[in-house]
Amino acid sequence: MAQHADHAGPERGDREQQVLDRIDRARRRKPKVREERITLAHGSGGKATQTLVEAVFLENLRNPVLEQLEDGAELAVGNARLAFTTDSFVVSPLFFPGGDIGDLAVNGTVNDLAVSGARPLFLSAGFIIEEGFPVADLTRIVTSMSEAAEAAGVRVVTGDTKVVQKGGADGCYVNTSGVGVIERRTRLGVETARPGDAVLVSGPVGDHGITVMLARGELDIEADVASDTAPVHEMVADLLRAAPGVRALRDATRGGVATVLNEIARASEVSVVVDEGAVPVRTEVRGASELLGIDPLYVACEGRIVVVVDAAQADAALRAMRAHPLGADAANIGHVVADAPGMVLLNTAFGGTRIVDLLVGDPLPRIC
Amino acid sequence: MAQHADHAGPERGDREQQVLDRIDRARRRKPKVREERITLAHGSGGKATQTLVEAVFLENLRNPVLEQLEDGAELAVGNARLAFTTDSFVVSPLFFPGGDIGDLAVNGTVNDLAVSGARPLFLSAGFIIEEGFPVADLTRIVTSMSEAAEAAGVRVVTGDTKVVQKGGADGCYVNTSGVGVIERRTRLGVETARPGDAVLVSGPVGDHGITVMLARGELDIEADVASDTAPVHEMVADLLRAAPGVRALRDATRGGVATVLNEIARASEVSVVVDEGAVPVRTEVRGASELLGIDPLYVACEGRIVVVVDAAQADAALRAMRAHPLGADAANIGHVVADAPGMVLLNTAFGGTRIVDLLVGDPLPRIC
Repeated sequence: MAQHADHAGPERGDREQQVLDRIDRARRRKPKVREERITLAHGSGGKATQTLVEAVFLENLRNPVLEQLEDGAELAVGNARLAFTTDSFVVSPLFFPGGDIGDLAVNGTVNDLAVSGARPLFLSAGFIIEEGFPVADLTRIVTSMSEAAEAAGVRVVTGDTKVVQKGGADGCYVNTSGVGVIERRTRLGVETARPGDAVLVSGPVGDHGITVMLARGELDIEADVASDTAPVHEMVADLLRAAPGVRALRDATRGGVATVLNEIARASEVSVVVDEGAVPVRTEVRGASELLGIDPLYVACEGRIVVVVDAAQADAALRAMRAHPLGADAANIGHVVADAPGMVLLNTAFGGTRIVDLLVGDPLPRIC
Repeated sequence: MAQHADHAGPERGDREQQVLDRIDRARRRKPKVREERITLAHGSGGKATQTLVEAVFLENLRNPVLEQLEDGAELAVGNARLAFTTDSFVVSPLFFPGGDIGDLAVNGTVNDLAVSGARPLFLSAGFIIEEGFPVADLTRIVTSMSEAAEAAGVRVVTGDTKVVQKGGADGCYVNTSGVGVIERRTRLGVETARPGDAVLVSGPVGDHGITVMLARGELDIEADVASDTAPVHEMVADLLRAAPGVRALRDATRGGVATVLNEIARASEVSVVVDEGAVPVRTEVRGASELLGIDPLYVACEGRIVVVVDAAQADAALRAMRAHPLGADAANIGHVVADAPGMVLLNTAFGGTRIVDLLVGDPLPRIC
């Protein structure tokens, strides 16, 4: 048996060993933050965030669950399998077309649970409020959270409120953590993509980030866009029923689709090839992105998922998503190959190929 | 049976009905925040916090679990009973004698789980960091979290990092949420105190709050005090084994022992009578409190618990706490009576009696 394992390489079920191997490699790599001070780029979800997380958080808090760096941690308590996740929201402005920090905070955590393959159940809500913040605005945020929670079928069961002096925060920040139950047998994970797999997105990318950016009013651009903030758990449930060959799921938030694909390529030691022309982008979002000098692939969505699925089930997966209102414009945008492990390659509309690397810097701070 | 229930009043096990009754009463009361803007007092844990929580959070997010306003929500998932809790930490300064925001954030959530009667298992960690914050300080905070988690036997399994522009935060804020498993049969709750019960504290009160206040260096007071930040879960486990008649447990954080006693008096519709001379307060803390014009009963601790226990088991409970290093100075400080429901009364050292009300204003902002 040992001999067999030597030759066969890691089996899909052999996740603990894969994780231990990765810990081992990470230890040898010894990542280091070169900057002496935190910059906005450390919050972008891109390269600087990754280094910070590995050098400061993982180095010190290292354990096999955290090491997986999934959107939700998978835990066993009694005979229940739980997903547990956390997210702080610092979006500016607090209110924007299509949503506000309240429903964003609920949907964000619901979606992190959903893409962990869990049924979202319970949320916590922690508020950090700046002295002088209007009570009416806080009430509007909480009302929005309540409506979002009801729509997603979750309950906010515990909370906390802190107030800091004027200038100690920018209005209001919200942390939501979430607990869900994992009922499916197979495991999902960014490290499970295999050559030949198809890569799908559930709809147009970049709506949320561009909407928030324009809502700041600092740019002289007007566009008819709204945030895509929405709870994806029902669409994910439909998807997983229709296509049990789904291997990895992520919601494309901070850092956008490009960041998710880089995480998959890196964790699975494969490369992802994306067909630029196949990526759905709304005309308004494409236009605003060009004016801002940003690639929509890096712009946050808050109601879109990236799916890696066995190619044989790609059509079934697309059909399942398209049958749901949130997935009406789902598209097959690329595939997984064995060459150039860790890379994301874009076949451009002009027939060229370029590398889609992790984001450097943060062109869109405080989008979520 | 209905007739019997009419006469007997709510049974202890009849918690759901009690909660529904309380929802009903709260609905009739219709709390309202009179201020138009958030003040520091809304974060004090006192009267303004209570009104804010009831008027804004409960009014909008109302459900029977949240309604209990316990430190941890009790949840059923599969055959497991879980406790789930959240806390944001905005303490200033970030580093102080006896601890820092890192171990404070771990111990605070471990303790909220412990006083819910749960065995703490898993934590999340969410960071909001101000641009320009030293990476070395962040590393020190995370190292401290790691050591505190190891000491408390919990794992940080999921995290999140956000960065806001300079001036958008004061250094670094940390949210921890926690999941624990509830293994005991009987339920704990602030609404279960009965006339005759004894009220205990596990040690000297106010060390943490006074330490942080003095560490700010704004006052010309020096005192040899250190924060009491510590994980109380083992002491609580010993206590619950030795005294199954424990009815309510709370860690006396923001708002101090006085706030906890008010919550118990209010929720249980009893009054709590405290013997001022029996409350353990260190000489340095008493001296600094007098200079600051604060009653130590309102000053936050981060490693002290308040216990309501069947009087017949008060000595057993004290012995169990005193056998643990964190409870060496545990004391019986008062008892529960039926008169004047909702009130906390202090028998002073001078032979008088005064009402210990919920805190108005916030003399000690950003203590935790």
